[in-house]
Amino acid sequence: MTDLWEHGGMHRVVVVGAGFAGLSAARALIGQPVDVTVVDQRNFHTFQPLLYEVATAGLESGDVAYPIRVIFGKADNVSFRMAAVTGVDWERREVILAEDHRLPFDSLVVASGATARFFGIPGASEHSFPLYTLTDARRLRDHILRRLEDVDSHPEGAGARGALTFVVVGGGPTGVEVAGALAELLDVAVEHDGFAFDREAGRIILVDALDRLLTPFEESAADYAARTLSGRGIELRLGHLVRAVRDDAVELDDGTVIPTRTVVWAGGVTVEGTVAGDIGAPTGQNGRLLVGPDLTVEGHDDVYAVGDAAAVPWGGGEDADKVCPQVAQVAIQSGAHAARQILARVAERPTEPFHYKDKGIMATIGRRAAITQFRSGRVLRGTLGWLAWLGLHLVYLVGFRNKIVVFVNWSWRYLSWGSGPRIIVGEESVASDDGEPLASG
Amino acid sequence: MTDLWEHGGMHRVVVVGAGFAGLSAARALIGQPVDVTVVDQRNFHTFQPLLYEVATAGLESGDVAYPIRVIFGKADNVSFRMAAVTGVDWERREVILAEDHRLPFDSLVVASGATARFFGIPGASEHSFPLYTLTDARRLRDHILRRLEDVDSHPEGAGARGALTFVVVGGGPTGVEVAGALAELLDVAVEHDGFAFDREAGRIILVDALDRLLTPFEESAADYAARTLSGRGIELRLGHLVRAVRDDAVELDDGTVIPTRTVVWAGGVTVEGTVAGDIGAPTGQNGRLLVGPDLTVEGHDDVYAVGDAAAVPWGGGEDADKVCPQVAQVAIQSGAHAARQILARVAERPTEPFHYKDKGIMATIGRRAAITQFRSGRVLRGTLGWLAWLGLHLVYLVGFRNKIVVFVNWSWRYLSWGSGPRIIVGEESVASDDGEPLASG
Repeated sequence: MTDLWEHGGMHRVVVVGAGFAGLSAARALIGQPVDVTVVDQRNFHTFQPLLYEVATAGLESGDVAYPIRVIFGKADNVSFRMAAVTGVDWERREVILAEDHRLPFDSLVVASGATARFFGIPGASEHSFPLYTLTDARRLRDHILRRLEDVDSHPEGAGARGALTFVVVGGGPTGVEVAGALAELLDVAVEHDGFAFDREAGRIILVDALDRLLTPFEESAADYAARTLSGRGIELRLGHLVRAVRDDAVELDDGTVIPTRTVVWAGGVTVEGTVAGDIGAPTGQNGRLLVGPDLTVEGHDDVYAVGDAAAVPWGGGEDADKVCPQVAQVAIQSGAHAARQILARVAERPTEPFHYKDKGIMATIGRRAAITQFRSGRVLRGTLGWLAWLGLHLVYLVGFRNKIVVFVNWSWRYLSWGSGPRIIVGEESVASDDGEPLASG
Repeated sequence: MTDLWEHGGMHRVVVVGAGFAGLSAARALIGQPVDVTVVDQRNFHTFQPLLYEVATAGLESGDVAYPIRVIFGKADNVSFRMAAVTGVDWERREVILAEDHRLPFDSLVVASGATARFFGIPGASEHSFPLYTLTDARRLRDHILRRLEDVDSHPEGAGARGALTFVVVGGGPTGVEVAGALAELLDVAVEHDGFAFDREAGRIILVDALDRLLTPFEESAADYAARTLSGRGIELRLGHLVRAVRDDAVELDDGTVIPTRTVVWAGGVTVEGTVAGDIGAPTGQNGRLLVGPDLTVEGHDDVYAVGDAAAVPWGGGEDADKVCPQVAQVAIQSGAHAARQILARVAERPTEPFHYKDKGIMATIGRRAAITQFRSGRVLRGTLGWLAWLGLHLVYLVGFRNKIVVFVNWSWRYLSWGSGPRIIVGEESVASDDGEPLASG
């Protein structure tokens, strides 16, 4: 642990954000001749690819959260600061924290991520549940479980008021994963938890503006996903825009009104409204920070933007100008690249351009059904795709303990569905049906 | 699952509360010729003896919570209703739920537990942290971890403002356990989490009105606990009453003012202010429901009160009139006894008096130090006492999955302290020092 005011002339790096990108940058700087401070408003890293499992009561919160201090506890040159970042003072080269506390820097890595994008659809931000933070996931879980309790206690008119209708907006990987996991949760609730309603009373509707699922995947993979979801009873409404979200219904562009108390928002992300917008640097589409080939922010030699917050250029040959997708692999690779460029400059070497190494993409649709698509376009699907997905996610889960616990949770669930953390942690004493997200934290 | 209005003449039992007592009663009725409804405002059972581990970031919330529906999912004659109970309509023999929903009963088991007792001490209910529910435990954990972050970010004057001073009120098992676990948490924070403050800056002060710890235990056990806690740096203030709790300090009866932001309230429990007080039955000391030898409530043949909510008579020979302590073993045994008496009456057999089988008492002081006292008065302590404590708690933890996960958590923690769920789930973005319990749910 090094106090910043005692840095003794060491090059000071501030990393804003401890998601995949920020962690990757800070880890690459452990033991290097720089003083690093990681700033995040939360004291834990969130393994975002599995948030949908928390939201559907398959995993505990703690299974996908890892304390940041534990990661850097033994690194003498990396410290952690739990604080919200409000801006950057470019004159004094300081990151501004809440209550005007300051963190001076020589190099800055902006890895502040993104947030849900509602496209200005009326009611969407008020009445739907995004799935980007652990709090989002836990609020959604509490809400879903409360709906089940509510229907069990008050079955009269449950269908008409949409109490058991779950609408998922967005047919990308997150939407497909949530829809698949919701179907499994309903199966389990009826089979094992003694709920009185019929499984058929539960409806899951997946809406997307495009007429196919999983755009980044090959057509055949998308078809497989559509068939699998339909086979599990999920209704697909492809080629439809959401016109409005109300507390008791969703309206589509063809005038359809779907009564529902639960709209899961997996419709995309934006950097607008996040810290990246407050630092006063040029931004592009969706508010992503514009960066050069070496990932430095325009006009700032010593400021890097990485991960979801940045419009990371693909680099390399023919794809050099393409912008990378906002996925974990890009975050991890761009974070590490920024760290290497900082070290290069400290050593007075020139920086190098980023080049994304595409390792393929994955999406899971539920129990024993997933898609793994390699860069070649080759697609693994079904049980094999699912095992590949499972293995990769276990390997990437930060922390050995988490791997064991997640493995135990999953094994147990797949063996029996007997347990699983189907607990409502929000402290509202009565199952309410007012459509309001309940406070849960 | 049986709808109440279709009970077809079967004897209807309502069990209010799914703590140790309520669960024990309902479990004893599985497969019997009665229709059982368990009502609780939460959808999970809480393993209360380990709440202090959640509060000190040793265990996850989910490790000590188990979904009630999973326990009774396969029992055709037991259903669950998530609702708050507001009273009993004795005329119509119905339990009244929130929003005036009703549950008719032929027999009633009141197992609604207790709540923190503040003895009317000014400021205690507003400014201290009780430890009776999972929400209590999580709020306390968030608060403690925020204090550490706060001192790390703003070390100036931390001692004077009591930011690292933790006062535990109550020298019973809960108080001793929290104090011991807090000391370990501070050790870990300094050793492994890279906090910048010295371990010595953290103070833990245990206050009790009596001049010894662990009143139900033998004097020698209490002495051992006092020596062990002192040896781990915990300051004992025995023989002192708390005169007031403020948001920035605790005042003792000798005029001492201890600056602190964290007062853990382990000063005792009361039934006053809980559901038991709303049912209109006679109560005794601390609001406990008065019951006869067969655990029926005075004036009601078919109403049983069990667990912490009742003044359960010890029964048997010389101790017959003694009232049992409010501990898990009494709850478990009295709940099962009530169930047996209900079945006896349904079969038109007479009821039998309760007789508590004392299996001894236990308290842990931390890593490898615990006390197990058998009924004979024999005391096991040190590592042996701790292993006995560990084994018993693992055996009693509801649910196999929980046992494995808790075992993994603990093993891992004892091997390395590397991880452990030291995450702050409340969504406040900045570590604040205002002494307010943060919303966390």
